[in-house]
Amino acid sequence: MSSTVEPIARIAAQLARLPGIGQKSAQRLAYHIAGMPEQDVHDLAAAIWQGRKAVRFCSICGNYTQNEICSVCADDKRKNGQICVVRDPRDVAAMERMRDYQGRYHVLHGALSPMNGIGPEDIHIRELLARLASEQVNEVILATNPDIEGEATAAYIAKLIKAMGIRVTRIAHGVPVGSDLEYADEITLSKAMEGRREL
Amino acid sequence: MSSTVEPIARIAAQLARLPGIGQKSAQRLAYHIAGMPEQDVHDLAAAIWQGRKAVRFCSICGNYTQNEICSVCADDKRKNGQICVVRDPRDVAAMERMRDYQGRYHVLHGALSPMNGIGPEDIHIRELLARLASEQVNEVILATNPDIEGEATAAYIAKLIKAMGIRVTRIAHGVPVGSDLEYADEITLSKAMEGRREL
Repeated sequence: MSSTVEPIARIAAQLARLPGIGQKSAQRLAYHIAGMPEQDVHDLAAAIWQGRKAVRFCSICGNYTQNEICSVCADDKRKNGQICVVRDPRDVAAMERMRDYQGRYHVLHGALSPMNGIGPEDIHIRELLARLASEQVNEVILATNPDIEGEATAAYIAKLIKAMGIRVTRIAHGVPVGSDLEYADEITLSKAMEGRREL
Repeated sequence: MSSTVEPIARIAAQLARLPGIGQKSAQRLAYHIAGMPEQDVHDLAAAIWQGRKAVRFCSICGNYTQNEICSVCADDKRKNGQICVVRDPRDVAAMERMRDYQGRYHVLHGALSPMNGIGPEDIHIRELLARLASEQVNEVILATNPDIEGEATAAYIAKLIKAMGIRVTRIAHGVPVGSDLEYADEITLSKAMEGRREL
C-alpha cells in the first residue's frame, strides 16, 4: 500500500512471504511490530535469525537438530530396528507428540512428484537405503502423507525395501478419531472399510 | 512441545506472542522458517528489526514515519484546516486506502478506558489541543472506533473542542456497504436509521 510507511511496508512484505499469512494479516502484524517495545522486537528478530542459524540436519536421520545428531537418534532408550519414514521434520514432531512410537525416524525431505520434477534422487531415499544396509532393521514404517505424492513415495520405497527382505508397513488410512462419518469423504471411508479389523 | 528442537521452539514462542498467531501456527511457521534459505531468513529478521528501529512518531500528528514528520503532514497538497482524529497509526493507513480524504490527521495512540486506567492524559489529547491552538483548524473529524471506548473518547474530545468554537463531526455509523441487512446487529441498524438522509 502506497500510504504505508516504508519500513512497515518492508516488514509486511517479508511476513506476507510466510505460508498462511496474507497481505492483510502481514500489514496488521507489521503495524503491531512497529508499536512493540524495541527489546521485544529485538528478541523476535534474534530468535528467528539465530534459531535458523542454529538448526542443522541430523546426520543420521535428517531430522532438525542443533547438534550433530538429533535427540531421537541420540536417545539410547529408543528401540533400534524400527524406522519410521516421514516427509518432513515437522512430521517427526507430530509423531513424537503421540508419545507411542519408540523407534527411530528417517526424514525424506520431500516426496516424489514427477509433475514438479522431483525424482528419487531428489529426496533422501539413498540415505535410507544406506542405513538399511548398515543398521539392523526389522521394520520400515512408511508414514508419508496420505495424498498422491505421499502414496507414490511410499509405493516406490516399499518396492525397494521388500527386495531387501525387510518388512515394510504403511500407516493406516481411515476415519479420524473424533470425526463424524457423515462428513468423511468417500475415499477415506472406502479406505476405512478396506482396513477394517476383527473385534 | 518437548519434542521440538530448541531453536525452533524459541522461534515458535516468539511468534506466538504476536496477535492472531496461535501456538499451532507459530509452530508451523517456525518449522517453515527453519527450512527456509538462510538469506531469506536474514531478510525477514532484518526487515523486522531494522524496520522497527526506523519507525518513529510524526512530531506533528503522531502517525508512524521514518522522518521527523510523516508523509501526510509533509504533503503540501493536503488540505489544511481539517483534522481527522484516529486511535492508531493503522487507522491512518485505513483512511488513506480510501483515497477520498484530503485533510490532516491526529493520532491519539489509544482510547479512553477507565476500566483499564487509561485517562485523557494517557492519550495524545493534549497534543491535539495544542495543534488547535496554533493551527488554523475549521473542522475536527472524530474517527475513533465505533465501540464503547471509541465513543467515550469521541464524546470527551467533542466537548473540549466545541468549547473552543471549532466545528466537530463524527464519522457516520450505519450498515456497511455490500453487507446484508438481515445480518446487521440492532445497534448498527438503529444507528443507520437515525442517520438516514434525504434522497
